[in-house]
Order: sequence, then structure tokens, then C-alpha cells
Amino acid sequence: MSARVGPTWRGPCLQLQWRPERCGCSTGTRRETDMRGLPAIISACANANLRDFVPLHIDGTMAGRVHHRRAPYLLKCLPWLQQGADVLLWNGDDPAGRTRRLAEALPVLAEAGLARAPTGELFDVVRPFGGIPLARCDRALLPTFGFPGYGVHVVGYVADAGGPLIWIPRRSHDREIAPGQLDNTIAGGIASGMTVIETLRKEAQEEAGLPPPVVDAAQPTGGLAYCHQEGEFLRDDTLFLYDLPMHRDVRPRNLDGEVEDFSLMPWRQVLELLRNGASFKFNCGPVLIDFLLRHGLMDPDREPGYSGLARGLRGSAL
Amino acid sequence: MSARVGPTWRGPCLQLQWRPERCGCSTGTRRETDMRGLPAIISACANANLRDFVPLHIDGTMAGRVHHRRAPYLLKCLPWLQQGADVLLWNGDDPAGRTRRLAEALPVLAEAGLARAPTGELFDVVRPFGGIPLARCDRALLPTFGFPGYGVHVVGYVADAGGPLIWIPRRSHDREIAPGQLDNTIAGGIASGMTVIETLRKEAQEEAGLPPPVVDAAQPTGGLAYCHQEGEFLRDDTLFLYDLPMHRDVRPRNLDGEVEDFSLMPWRQVLELLRNGASFKFNCGPVLIDFLLRHGLMDPDREPGYSGLARGLRGSAL
Repeated sequence: MSARVGPTWRGPCLQLQWRPERCGCSTGTRRETDMRGLPAIISACANANLRDFVPLHIDGTMAGRVHHRRAPYLLKCLPWLQQGADVLLWNGDDPAGRTRRLAEALPVLAEAGLARAPTGELFDVVRPFGGIPLARCDRALLPTFGFPGYGVHVVGYVADAGGPLIWIPRRSHDREIAPGQLDNTIAGGIASGMTVIETLRKEAQEEAGLPPPVVDAAQPTGGLAYCHQEGEFLRDDTLFLYDLPMHRDVRPRNLDGEVEDFSLMPWRQVLELLRNGASFKFNCGPVLIDFLLRHGLMDPDREPGYSGLARGLRGSAL
Repeated sequence: MSARVGPTWRGPCLQLQWRPERCGCSTGTRRETDMRGLPAIISACANANLRDFVPLHIDGTMAGRVHHRRAPYLLKCLPWLQQGADVLLWNGDDPAGRTRRLAEALPVLAEAGLARAPTGELFDVVRPFGGIPLARCDRALLPTFGFPGYGVHVVGYVADAGGPLIWIPRRSHDREIAPGQLDNTIAGGIASGMTVIETLRKEAQEEAGLPPPVVDAAQPTGGLAYCHQEGEFLRDDTLFLYDLPMHRDVRPRNLDGEVEDFSLMPWRQVLELLRNGASFKFNCGPVLIDFLLRHGLMDPDREPGYSGLARGLRGSAL
């Protein structure tokens, strides 16, 4: 277990919501340019319509969201859920009790197609990260209940005179999620009891064969969050982002079967792949766009869509 | 005029909305820590309740927002505005005509307390940045109509073994906006016809006495956007962010009276000032927090509020 202490944010949680509006881009002719693909990557990642989801409150805490079409079924088959006013309620259990009930629910829900196949990986139900978990459950249940998920994404790169060369893996074709798609150098979800850096080290070893001395150069660079909807599933994810400068002679090598091969690509090639709609896993493109923006590889005066990208990626706080 | 071309974003504009919800931070004891101040800085900047504002559509384009309490008065005194269904409409003028009407409206609105005092600075009414302007108007009118504003914020720093030292100016006490408050090294709004980098160079000269050879080291790092409400005024701002590495022997020196003095502060001191509620201009704190996050000066495993900060600053795209 990590030694992290309780939560500190005492104000309201800042929950973002996309409101697609008629675009005020232009009053005249609209021009097509090759920047069109980048905003599309962002909106495809943050694609959830939260108005279609009913909040799930656990002992008064906003813990997740359930698609409104699923709520009646869940209320029927999960006796510990109650209907509130525009909200689902789960009161009266303690974290251990909730963990037990979720474990019992998983096979029932998976059988009914309301949960993905069990992964065997235990994740905390916690918001924000570092707080006291409300429960633990198989990772497969997070999108069923819209529980928050936390992950680590690392962009490994080799410094070069022409700008960074980036290590891009292709996911194996036998994966359940995003088979054959391009990914970030190292990426993985944070399992219960793991810290961010422990997860980074574990995934670096398993996914890219990179030992601690190499990985110790990783530098945190902030985070990104999105609500991604797949049918009636909701991924409410926060990614902790890292840059990993690597020596040219270090070559990542997958050990756990998740990755088919790694390519070292000049950043311009990565940008072109993104623009041209290459098949990156849905949450990898935004991380790479953020990397390119942070490293000064896009110019606000030359990339006409820059302000929109910056708003899409980081306009919120704010 | 800049040679920037038309807009490229053909998808829906991504309009963010804050939804303060009951915080799911904890099911147990809530702990106070010194991170509390940082989220508060972000929520004080992005404090607008957009439900209180009526969209203003110019020829079918979402151009701005007017506080619902002001809409009746504006409809009465500005004959070119019409009431639509939950929207204000302005149809039938071309950009030159709109520019003329806004110039005529300014003294009337200022007299009635519905616009700030004229600044003499002409700004484009345009969304997104780089598009074809719908009109031009005195900067004072942007918050009256909730028109988007664009600015540049530069964090100037000196690399040091213990991490960056940051140049922090204190604004002069005779300023109308944020007198005596702390600011970012260089900051300014982008006037009509100016590019981002032209604005950066102009402000660097005027505010900090930094000539082009020094400023050419500035590197774009992305952007931040927020909707900030002051009474019935709305600032819908997008900031283009830059890092400016500086030699230790270069000392900024204000030339236009906006700044009282500059201090070179270790990043830890800047962080402590932010945490302890020091008086930074409302939009400077988020820019500095973003700088500290991007430079790896906060650790996801040691700063319990990190995921919330990352979500607040960059959770959207996403």
C-alpha cells in the first residue's frame, strides 16, 4: 500500500462537460487544412454526453455515473442500489462491504453484457486520486458504473537536432482493447495499492523492458482527463503524464505480449500520422498532441487551429 | 495585419462548462493540507456560471454571451439586437457595419455602467483565434458581450541547480485592473491585426524592457482557457503560453508604468506564495501552476491534490 494521505480538495469537484455548439469558426468561407485531424482526435476521446448518465452517489459522495437506459436494470438486479431524485443511491455499506458486493455483482453483470470480461486486476473506487477508497473492484466494472479510472502515460523520446524522436509501439493484434493500434511508449492503469511511480516502473518493465535506471529519468508533466463513452459504458479517466528522455542506444522491448513492435519516429512523422487519421488508441493522440504543444513543436501563429487545440486540451481550469 | 489564414476547425467548438458538484473527495475524515490553495486559485479564475448568460449569435455564429439581467437593457438601447429563443441575435450587418455600431454603443454603455472605460485598444471579435473577425471593438466591450479575448502569458525563468528561478513582477498601484498584484513576467492582450509573437515581442519590450534577441528564446507551450465572471461581466479568455529561459545577468525593467518592480524568485517560493494566498492577478496563478506541473516540480505521489489540479488545468480535452 502506498503511504499517500487523504484528500485535500475541499471545494467542489470540477466536473467538466462538453457542450458541442454551433461552431463560431468563421463567418465566411471555411478552409480545409491538415490541422482538421487534431481537434477530431480530441473530440473523439472526450466524446461522452454526460446528460445521458445518472450520477451514482455512495454515502453522499458522487462516485460514478450509470447510463440512464441501464439504471432500471441495475436497480432490479442489485438490491443495494436505490433510486433517488435523478440519482442512484448506495448507502449503508462500508468499503469492505461494497468491495464484496461488487465482486458478487461482476459475474451477473458480465453475463448480462453490462460489464466487460473480468480482468483479475483490482482497482480502487476513489475520487480524487490519493483519497480514501470507497471500494475496490475488478477493473472491468469501472465503465459499468462510470467509476473514475487513473492511469500513467509516458512519452519516451530521443533528443535530436531536428527535435525529438518518439518511441511509438503498435499493440498486439490479440488484445481485447485496441488491437493493432498505435500506443504511447508506456501506458497502464493504476491498480489498487499502487502509486503512480510504481505503476510507471512496472509497466516500463513489462511493456517496454526498460529497467529502473532508464525509467528514473521520467519527469511528470501534469495530467489529462476525459470522459469517454463507448455505447452505454463510461470511462471517466485521469492520466498522469510523464516525459521520458532516452539514450539513442536504448531500445524498448516488450515482455508481456501487449506490444507487437516499437518504432522510433521523428516528431514530424508522429504529427503527420495523427493528422492523417492513423489508428492510435483513442486516448494516446491527445497525450501526443499535448507533448508536441508543451515542447514548442507547434507555433500559435502558423497552426491556425492552435487556440482550439489548446482550449480542447487545457481549457477548463480555466 | 497578420498573414494568418482562415479557421480550420470544422467540428463543433468545444465549449467547456463548469459543473460544481458535491465533492467526492472522501468518505472519511477530510484532511487539510497546504495544497488547498492551488485548486482554489483555479476555481477562482474559472468562476463563471454560464447558465446565467444568454448566447449572442451574430449571423448564426455563437459570438459571445450577455448576462441575462442585462439582456433586456441591451435590447432596449441597441436597436440592432433582437430577441431570439433563449438567444440574442444580431443579423444583417457586415464586419465594418458591426465595428461602427459597437463604436457608437461604447459611450452609451460606458455611461450606463455596462462597459468599462474605453481603452483605446482595438480588439478583434473572433472565434477561434486566426479566423475571420466578425467585428472589431474597443477592448472595454469584450466583457460586456462576453466576446472571446486572446492573450499571451510568458513565464521568464533562470535555470538553476535547484530548479528554475522565476521573474515575478508586481503591478503598479495606479493600474485600473489588479493594482499592486503579482503578475507573470510578460503578459498582454492580442490587439487587432497583431500575431501572437508580435504581441509577445511588444509586451516584452514595454513591460520588461526585453529586446528581441532575449525574447527569441521564448518557446510556446500550449494554452489555457477560462470563463471568468466579474459581476455581470464575462471574460471568455484563451491564453497562449510561453516559457522564456533567461540568462542570470538579464534583468527585466519596466518601461510603460504597468509594473512597479520585478523579483527573481526560486520556484519553491512562488509555489509557497500561491499556496498561501498571495495576491496574484486572477489568471496568473493557473499559468504558474501549469508551469510548475510541466517542469516536473510537483510529484503525483507526493502532492495529494495533483490529480485534481491536472483535471482542473487540463481536464477537458479530454
